[in-house]
Amino acid sequence: MLVEMKNRFFMKKHNFSAGPCILPQEVLKKASEAVVELDNSGLSLIEISHRSKPFVDIMEKARALALELLGLEGKGYKALFLQGGASMQFIMVAHNLLEKRAGYLNTGTWSDKAIKEAKIYDDIYEVASSKDANFNYIPKAYDIPSDYDYFHCTSNNTIFGTQMKSFPKCDIPLVCDMSSDIFSRVLDFSQFDIIYAGAQKNMGPAGTTLVVVKEDILGKVSRQIPSMMDYKVHISKSSMFNTPPVFAVYTSMLTLKWLKNLGGIAAIEEENEKKARLLYSELDLNPLFKGYAAKDDRSTMNATFTLQQDYKETFETMLKEGGINGLNGHRSVGGYRASMYNALPFESVATLVEIMSELERKA
Amino acid sequence: MLVEMKNRFFMKKHNFSAGPCILPQEVLKKASEAVVELDNSGLSLIEISHRSKPFVDIMEKARALALELLGLEGKGYKALFLQGGASMQFIMVAHNLLEKRAGYLNTGTWSDKAIKEAKIYDDIYEVASSKDANFNYIPKAYDIPSDYDYFHCTSNNTIFGTQMKSFPKCDIPLVCDMSSDIFSRVLDFSQFDIIYAGAQKNMGPAGTTLVVVKEDILGKVSRQIPSMMDYKVHISKSSMFNTPPVFAVYTSMLTLKWLKNLGGIAAIEEENEKKARLLYSELDLNPLFKGYAAKDDRSTMNATFTLQQDYKETFETMLKEGGINGLNGHRSVGGYRASMYNALPFESVATLVEIMSELERKA
Repeated sequence: MLVEMKNRFFMKKHNFSAGPCILPQEVLKKASEAVVELDNSGLSLIEISHRSKPFVDIMEKARALALELLGLEGKGYKALFLQGGASMQFIMVAHNLLEKRAGYLNTGTWSDKAIKEAKIYDDIYEVASSKDANFNYIPKAYDIPSDYDYFHCTSNNTIFGTQMKSFPKCDIPLVCDMSSDIFSRVLDFSQFDIIYAGAQKNMGPAGTTLVVVKEDILGKVSRQIPSMMDYKVHISKSSMFNTPPVFAVYTSMLTLKWLKNLGGIAAIEEENEKKARLLYSELDLNPLFKGYAAKDDRSTMNATFTLQQDYKETFETMLKEGGINGLNGHRSVGGYRASMYNALPFESVATLVEIMSELERKA
Repeated sequence: MLVEMKNRFFMKKHNFSAGPCILPQEVLKKASEAVVELDNSGLSLIEISHRSKPFVDIMEKARALALELLGLEGKGYKALFLQGGASMQFIMVAHNLLEKRAGYLNTGTWSDKAIKEAKIYDDIYEVASSKDANFNYIPKAYDIPSDYDYFHCTSNNTIFGTQMKSFPKCDIPLVCDMSSDIFSRVLDFSQFDIIYAGAQKNMGPAGTTLVVVKEDILGKVSRQIPSMMDYKVHISKSSMFNTPPVFAVYTSMLTLKWLKNLGGIAAIEEENEKKARLLYSELDLNPLFKGYAAKDDRSTMNATFTLQQDYKETFETMLKEGGINGLNGHRSVGGYRASMYNALPFESVATLVEIMSELERKA
């Protein structure tokens, strides 16, 4: 009944929301069922002890799947599911690694916030910024001093629709906020020392944050770290220092399992590229629309674009009729933003592109 | 179908889990449905933007209900739904209020942890402690110096089964960790300046923490507070500084609505007293069992007790047959712990008491 209910509605809405965003239908179904009863246990997922075997198994499965999908098993990394979102990681990274000075690449709103929060703890140096062009590109030529504590960057900029296609080689720990493109493309993840990502794009519901840490970079700062901010504490307690956000962890585990069954990151990357190619081709061909991000830096996750003023009303009516949800651009950029996360079907992008080209025919 | 499924199993298990714990059946059902589709919107609760009207309404409703139920509307308080659990509040309280010295009452494991974390920020004075008797009572005679920044206490001690029946009058801000008994009994909540509580007992699933703050006590420390740790920032953003844990907030809102419909805190208090009276009477009458906490300080939420060694095996078999779940005591106390939170039906306690007296008859 649940599947039918969802499918009936699913055909009506194409969910381009920037996050929280679309999740796989089978994940929503199974998560919904677990809220009533977890695996024939006679109890709901959300009313069992987090120290009970069923939940301990869920947490361990989620942690193991994260490392497996990223190809980081047996390489000295630990995966944690914490609370507080990427915004809490802005503080925790500084707490755990910042002794004297760190270098940050400023590619947009989220980098900017990361810098602001870290500055409370110590000196931050902006190695480069694309603020001069309202962050419509990724800076490429910059130096990272080898005596800094770490280098921090944001792999994908949800608001501006830009994405780092490669990452600088550096001798110091490389920290990356991958909130909006983790698990979407194949990378050598072992080049990073800390990867963090709020769950609510490619992983699960809002309320948990995946942190993947290379253990040997920890324990080198002199400050006393409060337990809840200390990666070492969370690692020593297997990500259960205190009660974890059980529903968010369970649903993330289901999504990671879905991704593994699909063929892992390589398989989903192919899908993501197909979707992005279709949308960006239309953007480049259709004279009514204009892409916002520099072509080389276009994100496969979030496409940002504007439309000639005269056509807005018609376009928005067509979007509504077509069941397109969540296409409004962020106020910092204006226009539209199509977020094409892992779980968004190709048909949703095809429907949007159809509407865009129909608008051109009408014009 | 969902209701049937749950009822079928519900009759089998009596959930005495210490937390995450039992929630009202109608809440589980509605939360489960929302994971598939929120209120005929064609979208799941967990895949819509937290800035969308439906979710903003949910958050505002949850915040308003919390203040209404506590009788704190229009009295200068703000309610926040944050992440990180009570453990994060140990740090946030100190960050926001601790300038020189604060007084803490030590009534058990959680008070102890609160003290440990706050000490990182400044001087903490333990005004009294019941550590001498492994926290089986609540200290009563102590002074709270009026030049301290604040006084902190824990209203209910889940692990030891003790509960503060009254709170000291003091001239400085009164901060209370009510994680395990909030919304369970009528109190003059306006005597407190900060109340915080992890959701996973009387409110909802793990993953969000209610913080109720009297606004005028804020802004008095000199330290620079990171945004995520700053109550003023969260208040200014209506508890949406960053993406909130949507599922946990929604389910908490449902539970608060359930409580309001039931008649509010006064109505549930009556139920809770009936349950506690039944269990403690049995404990006092049945020679095989022995209550752990001092009689005057017994918690209505968590009853801790031991059983004569010889009867353990029989008792545990009987518990299993009776569908009793989550009765194991915490390792710091041993024995058993019956957690009787708001959503636990009277019949569950009656079933447990029946088993206890049956054991006596068998003995």
